[in-house]
Amino acid sequence: MEHLSGKEILQVSTYEGLNHFAANNLPAVLHGAVHNIRDMGDFAFLIIRIPEGLVQCVFEKTPENQDIFGALVFECTVEITGTARIEERAPGGVEIIPENVTVLSTPAEAMPINISKKFKLGINLDTDLSNRPITLRSGEMRARFRIQAAIVRGFREFLDRNGFTDIRTPKIVGGNAEGGTNVFRMDYFGKKAFLAQSPQFYKQTMVGVFERVYEVGPVFRAEKHSTVRHLNEYISLDFEMGYIKSFSDIMNMETACLQYIFKLLERDCARECKALGVKIPSCETIPMVRFRDAKELISAEYGHKIKDPFDLEPVEEQLISRYFLEKYGSELVFVTHYPSKKRPFYAMDDPEDPTFTLSFDLLFRGMEITTGGQRIHDYQAQVAKMITKGLDPEGFTNYLMIHKYGMPPHGGLGLGLERLCMKLLDDSNVRSCSLFPRDMNRLEP
Amino acid sequence: MEHLSGKEILQVSTYEGLNHFAANNLPAVLHGAVHNIRDMGDFAFLIIRIPEGLVQCVFEKTPENQDIFGALVFECTVEITGTARIEERAPGGVEIIPENVTVLSTPAEAMPINISKKFKLGINLDTDLSNRPITLRSGEMRARFRIQAAIVRGFREFLDRNGFTDIRTPKIVGGNAEGGTNVFRMDYFGKKAFLAQSPQFYKQTMVGVFERVYEVGPVFRAEKHSTVRHLNEYISLDFEMGYIKSFSDIMNMETACLQYIFKLLERDCARECKALGVKIPSCETIPMVRFRDAKELISAEYGHKIKDPFDLEPVEEQLISRYFLEKYGSELVFVTHYPSKKRPFYAMDDPEDPTFTLSFDLLFRGMEITTGGQRIHDYQAQVAKMITKGLDPEGFTNYLMIHKYGMPPHGGLGLGLERLCMKLLDDSNVRSCSLFPRDMNRLEP
Repeated sequence: MEHLSGKEILQVSTYEGLNHFAANNLPAVLHGAVHNIRDMGDFAFLIIRIPEGLVQCVFEKTPENQDIFGALVFECTVEITGTARIEERAPGGVEIIPENVTVLSTPAEAMPINISKKFKLGINLDTDLSNRPITLRSGEMRARFRIQAAIVRGFREFLDRNGFTDIRTPKIVGGNAEGGTNVFRMDYFGKKAFLAQSPQFYKQTMVGVFERVYEVGPVFRAEKHSTVRHLNEYISLDFEMGYIKSFSDIMNMETACLQYIFKLLERDCARECKALGVKIPSCETIPMVRFRDAKELISAEYGHKIKDPFDLEPVEEQLISRYFLEKYGSELVFVTHYPSKKRPFYAMDDPEDPTFTLSFDLLFRGMEITTGGQRIHDYQAQVAKMITKGLDPEGFTNYLMIHKYGMPPHGGLGLGLERLCMKLLDDSNVRSCSLFPRDMNRLEP
Repeated sequence: MEHLSGKEILQVSTYEGLNHFAANNLPAVLHGAVHNIRDMGDFAFLIIRIPEGLVQCVFEKTPENQDIFGALVFECTVEITGTARIEERAPGGVEIIPENVTVLSTPAEAMPINISKKFKLGINLDTDLSNRPITLRSGEMRARFRIQAAIVRGFREFLDRNGFTDIRTPKIVGGNAEGGTNVFRMDYFGKKAFLAQSPQFYKQTMVGVFERVYEVGPVFRAEKHSTVRHLNEYISLDFEMGYIKSFSDIMNMETACLQYIFKLLERDCARECKALGVKIPSCETIPMVRFRDAKELISAEYGHKIKDPFDLEPVEEQLISRYFLEKYGSELVFVTHYPSKKRPFYAMDDPEDPTFTLSFDLLFRGMEITTGGQRIHDYQAQVAKMITKGLDPEGFTNYLMIHKYGMPPHGGLGLGLERLCMKLLDDSNVRSCSLFPRDMNRLEP
C-alpha cells in the first residue's frame, strides 16, 4: 500500500531560493512560464515568471540547443536546470544560466495582448477587464493583487493579535438586513431570500459570543448606478468589538490596524510598491472632525455650497480630504457624528444630540473607505428606534434576540478592500482592484 | 483638532493578562458577560465570560455591595477591578477578588436556554439552531468555533509559507461553471446569473497568474436533499497549484497542510480540544488506494455488494475508512482514480486508462472531506473533452482563454470546512459546525 508523507512537497521557485543556489554554487532548478524572450543573436534572455516576479535566464544559442530554442514561445511553461549567479541588475538580484530546458506545456495561440513589453499594461480598462484571465499575468496586475493579498493578511494578523476571532457568516439571508432597496433577491427552495449586503447582524451577534470578531468576505449591493467607486460585489473587511467605552475605541482600533497593514506592506511588498509607484500614507495619527463641522469648514474654505445637510456628496469627501491634507498634512480623516436620518436603525444616537449618531466614515485621499460606529445594545432602545424608523420589530425577532438576552456596548466597521487598494494604488476606477469585477454590465469573466 | 494615534487601543481580557496581574501584584481589570452566578451564602462565584473562556471571581457579599450584587444577573455585562491571584483549580489558573463591579448593560429578559450549567449544551439540534444567537454563547459552541477559526488560520498560514497567494473570486457568476443542476439562480440586472458552486474556473485562472493560489470562501449548492452531511451554503478551503509532476503532488501538499493544521490545534487549542474531547488524528502518512481497488477490498472484506461502479455511496466511504483504520491504523485515506464518467469535464483522464481520472477524494473517519485532482491544461484536450461530455465549448470562451494562451500542468482541491470540523469533533450532523447553517428548511437566523 502506498502512503503519502507530506515530506516531499513540491517546491516553488523563489528569489531567496535562487540566491541560495547562487551563493552556495548549487545546481539551480526553476520552473515558470516564459514571460518574455529577447533574442540577442548569439544568446537570448529568457524571462521566466515565478510567483514573486520575473527571473532572467541567459540562454546560449549553441548548435545543440537550437531545437529547444525553437520550441520556446511566450507563455509556454518550462522547467530549467542550470547555474545561478548573483547579478544585481537582474530582478531579484540573480540570473540563471540554463543547462537544460524542458517545455512542460505550449499555448495553442499567441497572446492577443502584449503583457511582456512593459510592467504597466497600458490598455484601456474595458479591454483589460474583458481579458482579465490573461491581463492578470502582467507585472502590473500581479503586483497589484499581491499587495491586495498582503493588505488582507495584515488585517487578519493585526486582529488575531488583538483578541479578535475570525468568523464566517451566511451570504444567503432570509431578511433584508439593512432595510435598503439595493438588495439582490433570489429564490431559495420556494422562499424569498436575499444576498447579504453586509455581515452586520451576524457580526453583532458574534460580539455576544467572542467579544471581538472579524470577517473578510463578499458583500452584495444591487445598486443601479455605474460609478468609478461602486462594485455590485465587493470584499468587506469587517470587525466588531464589545466593551467599548466610546466609539473612538473603534477608530483607534482602525488606526492601529492601518498602521500595522502599512508597515507590513513596506516590509513585504517593497518591490511591488516601488514598481507601482505606491506612496504609503503616513498615519501615525489620524485627525477627526464632526460631520457638521466638516461641511462648514469646506464651505468657508472653498466656497462649496451645502446642498444635502444629511449626507456627503463625493465632491465634499474630496474637499474634506483636501482640507485635512492642506491644513494637517493627513491623507486620512475620520468624519464623525453623521446625521441619524441617514444612518441605519442600529446606529446609536449621540446622547448629547440625538439628531446625530456615534458613527463615522474614514476618508482616504478623497473617498470614503470605511463606515463604522457604535451600535445600540439595549433591547428597549433598539425596539424604540426601529419603530421611529418605521420598521416592524416583529420582522427582526432573530436579530433582537441578542439585545433581549444581553449585549455589551459595542461597535465596529466595514472597510471596502477594493476602495482601500484603489486609493493606495492611485487608481481612477475601483474595478481595477477587483480580480473579476461585477458591475451592472459585467458578469463575465 | 483631535487626532487618533492608535496607541491607546482598548485591551481585551486574557488569561495571560490576568496571570500577569497576579504574578506581579498589579491591580486587575477585567470585563465580560456574567456567564454564571453561584451564590455560596457569604460570598458568590461570579463566572465571567472572556473571549478565551471563563474567569472565576470570588465576590464577597459585604453589606456595602448588596446593591451591586442584586443588580447582577446572567448575561449582564460588567467591568471588574480587583486583585488577581493564582488558583490552579480555576479556569486559566487564576481567580479575581473584585473590589469594584460596574454593570455596563443588563438584558431585558432571562435566557430561555441554560448555557451556564454545563459545558455541553445538551439540547436537540433543532432547538440549538433556532436559538443560535444565544446558544453560541455556551462553552461548547465557543470551543467549537474557536477550533474552526484555528483550522482556517492553519490552512492559510501553511499555504502562505509555501508560496501560495490568497485570492478572492466572484460569487455571482454568469455561467453555470460545474455544469450541474444544483445551482442557485438569480436575476442580475435583467440577466440570468448563478451563485458560484465553487471557485473552480477562477482558481485555475489564477494558477496562470500566481502559480499557487488559495481561497477560503462560501460556495452555494442548491441540492434538494436534506442529509446530515450537506449544507446549501458552506465554506470551501480551496487551493490550486501549477507545475505539478503528478497529481500526488496535490495529495502530498494536502497531507503536509493537514499535519500543519493538526499541530497548530494541539498548540493553540489544547484547552478547547480537551473540553470537547477532540482526538486529533495522526497523519504522519496517509495511505492511498485506487477507487476500483477500494470497492473490491470492502466487497471482499465486508461482503458489501457493489451497486454503482462509478461512484461511492456513503456506506462505502464508511467501509473504506473502516478498512484502512483496521488494516493500517489510519483515520484518513486518499481514494484515487475516480471514473471519468462521474468527474467534471476539466478533470484530467489517466493516460494509462482514460476511463479513470487523475483525481482523488480524501476520506476522514468515514466521510469525504476533500475532492481534488489534476486538471486538463492543454487547449485541444480540454475542448475535446467538453465535446465528449456533450458541452458546447462556445459557452466557455472566458474559461478556455487560459488554456488557449497557455497553462502549466496543474491541479488542486476543495476541502469542506464544516465537514472537516464535523469529523474532527465527532459530530453527527454537519449543521453543528456552521455558525448559522443554511439548509432546505433553514434560512434563519
